[in-house]
Amino acid sequence: MDLKAYLKERCQLVDGALDRYLPREDELPSSLHRSMRYSVFAGGKRVRPILMLAACEAAGGNIDQAMPAACAMEMIHTYSLIHDDLPAMDDDDFRRGNPTNHKVFGEATAILAGDGLLTEAFILLSSPEAGGDLPPRERVAVIQEIARCAGSRGMVGGQVVDMESEGKKEIDLPTVQYIHTHKTGALIKASVKAGAILGGAGEAEVAALTRYGEAIGLAFQIADDILDIEGTTEEIGKDAGSDEARGKATYPAVVGLAEAKRRAAELTDMALAALGPFDAKADPLREIAKYIVYRKS
Amino acid sequence: MDLKAYLKERCQLVDGALDRYLPREDELPSSLHRSMRYSVFAGGKRVRPILMLAACEAAGGNIDQAMPAACAMEMIHTYSLIHDDLPAMDDDDFRRGNPTNHKVFGEATAILAGDGLLTEAFILLSSPEAGGDLPPRERVAVIQEIARCAGSRGMVGGQVVDMESEGKKEIDLPTVQYIHTHKTGALIKASVKAGAILGGAGEAEVAALTRYGEAIGLAFQIADDILDIEGTTEEIGKDAGSDEARGKATYPAVVGLAEAKRRAAELTDMALAALGPFDAKADPLREIAKYIVYRKS
Repeated sequence: MDLKAYLKERCQLVDGALDRYLPREDELPSSLHRSMRYSVFAGGKRVRPILMLAACEAAGGNIDQAMPAACAMEMIHTYSLIHDDLPAMDDDDFRRGNPTNHKVFGEATAILAGDGLLTEAFILLSSPEAGGDLPPRERVAVIQEIARCAGSRGMVGGQVVDMESEGKKEIDLPTVQYIHTHKTGALIKASVKAGAILGGAGEAEVAALTRYGEAIGLAFQIADDILDIEGTTEEIGKDAGSDEARGKATYPAVVGLAEAKRRAAELTDMALAALGPFDAKADPLREIAKYIVYRKS
Repeated sequence: MDLKAYLKERCQLVDGALDRYLPREDELPSSLHRSMRYSVFAGGKRVRPILMLAACEAAGGNIDQAMPAACAMEMIHTYSLIHDDLPAMDDDDFRRGNPTNHKVFGEATAILAGDGLLTEAFILLSSPEAGGDLPPRERVAVIQEIARCAGSRGMVGGQVVDMESEGKKEIDLPTVQYIHTHKTGALIKASVKAGAILGGAGEAEVAALTRYGEAIGLAFQIADDILDIEGTTEEIGKDAGSDEARGKATYPAVVGLAEAKRRAAELTDMALAALGPFDAKADPLREIAKYIVYRKS
């Protein structure tokens, strides 16, 4: 399959759906809705929604069943980026080459745009539109899965430990593993698992796809750490070597570059193995697993 | 009925449930969970949860059915206070006599504690524990109602317009009305409506209780504006007259004190009229409506 064309097409589908689901810019308060849309449409690759749609299809479902939840996931991801970039947090002026939300709209609106996007995700997840054919019981299960992975025991928790570790001299492997599996891994795992549930997967299939999601979630972040060292600034869209300069907790910093690469490859193998029982409908998930680790940006 | 004793008893019940539902302080990351708990247990009167439980009972339900959602509502209310107090927003050092969250835990942790509490609300709303006997379809409806009222077209929207209005010379009545019905009113209305649904109310009962919730939601905020002028600093726990000093959009500032009082009394009458068809089980709602407008703190 032509993964590049596939990702581009899916990205466009997700963008179109996000545009439909998000409050319009002229809806009051328009400053808030402009701010929310600014960051959602700031060039994201839609990795999490694409994974959710692909998991839904791998389980035999239609992507329409997973589209609202996929967009909700992207809203949660975007809110986390807006808050991460704030002066009190990472204090970043640029993201993907664009000024960060608070640089354009001011800090107060950026905080509230993040709050609005997080809440909008749950509005969408519980909307009649997101229901489709899915029994309400499974809908509640999907909300539970996504909320758990986004909360204080998931992504938010990972962000706190990441922040607390920054600049520390000695960071151990369990801490880096905690940060990676929570800050990035949790939402990626939830995307795949929710997609499986929305696609009508049985218990064993959900478990297999969850293992896939866990493996690529961690692999994705290790690959990011490696890219920060090996990529050029142009390729990765931020200053190369910025993790080391900031004293960030990374895999290569703790286990070395060679071992980090070995571990990323091993996780890819584990992800592919988890897809063993699935037919060709899981091919996009297979290709994405390889792409995540061997990408250049 | 002895409203004071009633409110005290309900407040203790809600506090106990919040303590059970919130992640413990020793759970990782403990700094985050300490910060979340600090603000939840900083002396709130639990107005929204108590209203939800009372609406549930007025509809013939048992308070156990509404307790998880009532606690979720308090988590959302608390997150909004933490974010409102941030330096980029109202920049408050004290709330209810205690140092604000960011003064104790720092800005970054305060932002994330707010994010964590908002997410925790949806974890709780979608948890098996919150299910009870309620059909999943109604559970999704409750999540939808609460999320909508908390989002960019509800509370967050009200906060944005409030912020944008601060210090402006001419604020008109529709703007003040927008701020009040969104920033404070939305969550109060949602508390009553969700309580009605959770108590098994029929369509007409839900509509009547929603009218009650809308009326007291607006009355509550007008009463707050009046208290800021007439109350002593000791009574209201913050500097009396601080709204005027800040150029805040208030009802008395726009329509005058006498008209504001007349309007608050009228809304109380409307709230009581909406309860007309309900029996003695709605007495607490009746007493609360009167208390909200004639309270001294």
